[in-house]
Amino acid sequence: MANKMEKITLRDVDFSQWYTDVVKNAGLMEYGPVKGTMIFKPHGYAIWELIQKIADIEFKKLGVQNVYFPLLIPEKLFLAEKEHVEGFAPELATVTKVGDKNLGENLFIRPTSEVLVADFLSREINSYRDLPVKYNQWANVMRWEKTTRPFLRSSEFLWQEGHTFHSLKEEAKQMTLDILEVYKKLANDVLLLPVISGRKTEKEKFAGAKETYTIESLMYDGQSLQSGTSHYFEDNFAKAFNIKFQNKNQKEEYAYSSSWGISTRLIGAIIMTHSDDFGLVLPSKVAPIQISIIAINDSQEVMTVSNDLKTKLNSSFRVELDKSDKSFGFKISEAEIKGVPIRIEVGPRDLKDGVVTISRRDLRNKVQIKLAEVENYINKEILEHDKNLYKKALKNRTDKTFKAKTLKEYVSIIEKTPGFVLVPFCGEIECENDVKQKTSTNSRCIPEGVEQTKSKCFNCNKVSSLMVYFARAY
Amino acid sequence: MANKMEKITLRDVDFSQWYTDVVKNAGLMEYGPVKGTMIFKPHGYAIWELIQKIADIEFKKLGVQNVYFPLLIPEKLFLAEKEHVEGFAPELATVTKVGDKNLGENLFIRPTSEVLVADFLSREINSYRDLPVKYNQWANVMRWEKTTRPFLRSSEFLWQEGHTFHSLKEEAKQMTLDILEVYKKLANDVLLLPVISGRKTEKEKFAGAKETYTIESLMYDGQSLQSGTSHYFEDNFAKAFNIKFQNKNQKEEYAYSSSWGISTRLIGAIIMTHSDDFGLVLPSKVAPIQISIIAINDSQEVMTVSNDLKTKLNSSFRVELDKSDKSFGFKISEAEIKGVPIRIEVGPRDLKDGVVTISRRDLRNKVQIKLAEVENYINKEILEHDKNLYKKALKNRTDKTFKAKTLKEYVSIIEKTPGFVLVPFCGEIECENDVKQKTSTNSRCIPEGVEQTKSKCFNCNKVSSLMVYFARAY
Repeated sequence: MANKMEKITLRDVDFSQWYTDVVKNAGLMEYGPVKGTMIFKPHGYAIWELIQKIADIEFKKLGVQNVYFPLLIPEKLFLAEKEHVEGFAPELATVTKVGDKNLGENLFIRPTSEVLVADFLSREINSYRDLPVKYNQWANVMRWEKTTRPFLRSSEFLWQEGHTFHSLKEEAKQMTLDILEVYKKLANDVLLLPVISGRKTEKEKFAGAKETYTIESLMYDGQSLQSGTSHYFEDNFAKAFNIKFQNKNQKEEYAYSSSWGISTRLIGAIIMTHSDDFGLVLPSKVAPIQISIIAINDSQEVMTVSNDLKTKLNSSFRVELDKSDKSFGFKISEAEIKGVPIRIEVGPRDLKDGVVTISRRDLRNKVQIKLAEVENYINKEILEHDKNLYKKALKNRTDKTFKAKTLKEYVSIIEKTPGFVLVPFCGEIECENDVKQKTSTNSRCIPEGVEQTKSKCFNCNKVSSLMVYFARAY
Repeated sequence: MANKMEKITLRDVDFSQWYTDVVKNAGLMEYGPVKGTMIFKPHGYAIWELIQKIADIEFKKLGVQNVYFPLLIPEKLFLAEKEHVEGFAPELATVTKVGDKNLGENLFIRPTSEVLVADFLSREINSYRDLPVKYNQWANVMRWEKTTRPFLRSSEFLWQEGHTFHSLKEEAKQMTLDILEVYKKLANDVLLLPVISGRKTEKEKFAGAKETYTIESLMYDGQSLQSGTSHYFEDNFAKAFNIKFQNKNQKEEYAYSSSWGISTRLIGAIIMTHSDDFGLVLPSKVAPIQISIIAINDSQEVMTVSNDLKTKLNSSFRVELDKSDKSFGFKISEAEIKGVPIRIEVGPRDLKDGVVTISRRDLRNKVQIKLAEVENYINKEILEHDKNLYKKALKNRTDKTFKAKTLKEYVSIIEKTPGFVLVPFCGEIECENDVKQKTSTNSRCIPEGVEQTKSKCFNCNKVSSLMVYFARAY
């Protein structure tokens, strides 16, 4: 591992190679035998489990119930919602046989489960009393991708997909926005990603949705990463799947629906926002190991203190004390590269003075702390560690947020310092396709909290009433 | 729901129909659009989540780490272990194309992930320092089944699969047995299934394993349900996938491995062991709702007491207070059919006497309890509820456990009162195939804790040194 660490490319030299090096050396993942599939190693999967736990609690506060729908979708079911199937058709992995036998019809591995949920609920929902339905599932999905990248883009990925149905339009819309709030809080407070949020343009919204809301994080290199989306369907899916209910006035109505998801992409967002040339840096709330205690030797005194510290800290933190015969230096490197927020070194010389040496991963400092003060010190420093990560990420975003009025201005910014660029935009699909073709960038969102003023579209010059963030994106 | 409840077939009249009726009316599952696939509805999935949480803690105590391996396995990888592929070949769902394009090779949806883990570890393991590896994943798997049955047998099911590799033979064997202990405790103490356990015969062991250990529960109808298995591979998979490591003496050795799993079948086991003519009966530790508070009307007094009870009980139990406009009778039926262990009815007449009416699901009794004593009473009664479930299940098993010396004796028992039948058995595959063909039953396990005496095989009369349980099985 110590040797492996030297292989991390410098972040400012080759960001893309740096990312792969960090991912591999931190032991987060390896590629699977099928192109574009991922093996989540323990350290990588543990980050996902922590994200799951935190998000799941928030969903349940909104009355969401977990369910599990099947992996396979019959072709004919998928064809019911036209825009939806067009959005996914080229990426669908298809089961055509079992053993030696050909199946009569094609079965798609789910790229998302709207159609399964809608088909099921068309039989379950009869009355307003059966609504709202608020389902969520934590599952694997598959979208065959041409180019893949660890966590960001893989043929199979893990995610949660929420699907809700309501008797009232406004309730469905509110659910869409409530989830956006959950995602914003998760990103800002837990993952320490200072996201921007807002509505997607016509071009960028989800296949089949009326409106799509998004949170977008800015990576260290100035590219945007879509980090969570929440879709409002109005009655699109209810109409396609005939989901009707009798309302309180005994009249039949179509139900209103939303869907929303976050995925293992978030792990990529964390890495590309916080990590450095020495490996992973992790927000403490999703760090599988929050404190690593490293004994300099295995003398009785050192081991007693190390064990005592572990016992004491274990009640508030996820603590590891590696007792293997790996070298001291190796263990230090490992804690660093794996992004452990706090490292405690316990050595005989320090112990003579009644101290241990504590390092914060973000600062890579070394401070000697009296044994009796260790717990208080760590309580304080782990908060500072997190504050510092957020502050740095916010500074990066602020430094890389710009305005432009013309395509020329926009291009010169994007080419010099990639980042979020706020531009006046007409909002039309054709115009956005044109921008995409000219610049290989697209819109990220129509931001909340930014004044939407009338102006000329930065690309087509038509009158525009939208202010929109464009950026390069993963 | 009240109407639906009337549709439950009596358990003693038609056990199979009773089972389906309970599953559907309790809102546990519905079939998916692809034959043999299942939709886990909220109440069914919540039971699985509770099982997961409890089992996951026990695995972690044994040093197991969660991971996630890809869904798809390339055909050529699957062919490496011969017995293994033969065991699964006819059941493999196969992806042959993506979008319009045919893939060059067949990709199987995992029926289990031994080959993926082994292939991966052949690159990861070099030294004894890299061992042991103790992986587990909670995942969906697919085995195409001809006949399907809710929870017991479906094309896709949810499970956990553990995969461990060790530098020492004895350590791998011990891991196999440690997991068997975890499964036994989970079954007995949490799910209240009085299982028998032991080793599988040559015929019944897992494809590719050296030894398979199992826990077997006896359902109410006297049929056995394999409820968890733990496999010891010796170095079979290490040889097939070339997993070598340098031992402490710098010599190369093959690693030793185990794998083990429990699945959503356990939900079926719980239902078929504990439930009754009135619906689901659930062990309290896996009951998604442990206490249901039902307000007889929505007067201020009744609602205040109901809300107070909910707040008070919420800290120790999973409590529900349904405030919908469904009728009182409907809510009572719903709590019963969904297997809520404790039901509290709050009504104005009772409140005049300072009492509420409490029912235990297993007894279907009604007891008036003073408000101040509710918490103590429930603490006691929920334990009694669970004890009673275990006692009844154990009585059923004891009443239906028999001995036989000849095939004739065996058949007459099985035909009269299905159950576990202990017989002297030669252990040979041909002989067991013969028994299977004659009786449509097979061996369940070579039990632990039963004296293994020399005798004549109950079928072929050869000298036999094994005492083996045979039974009808799901």
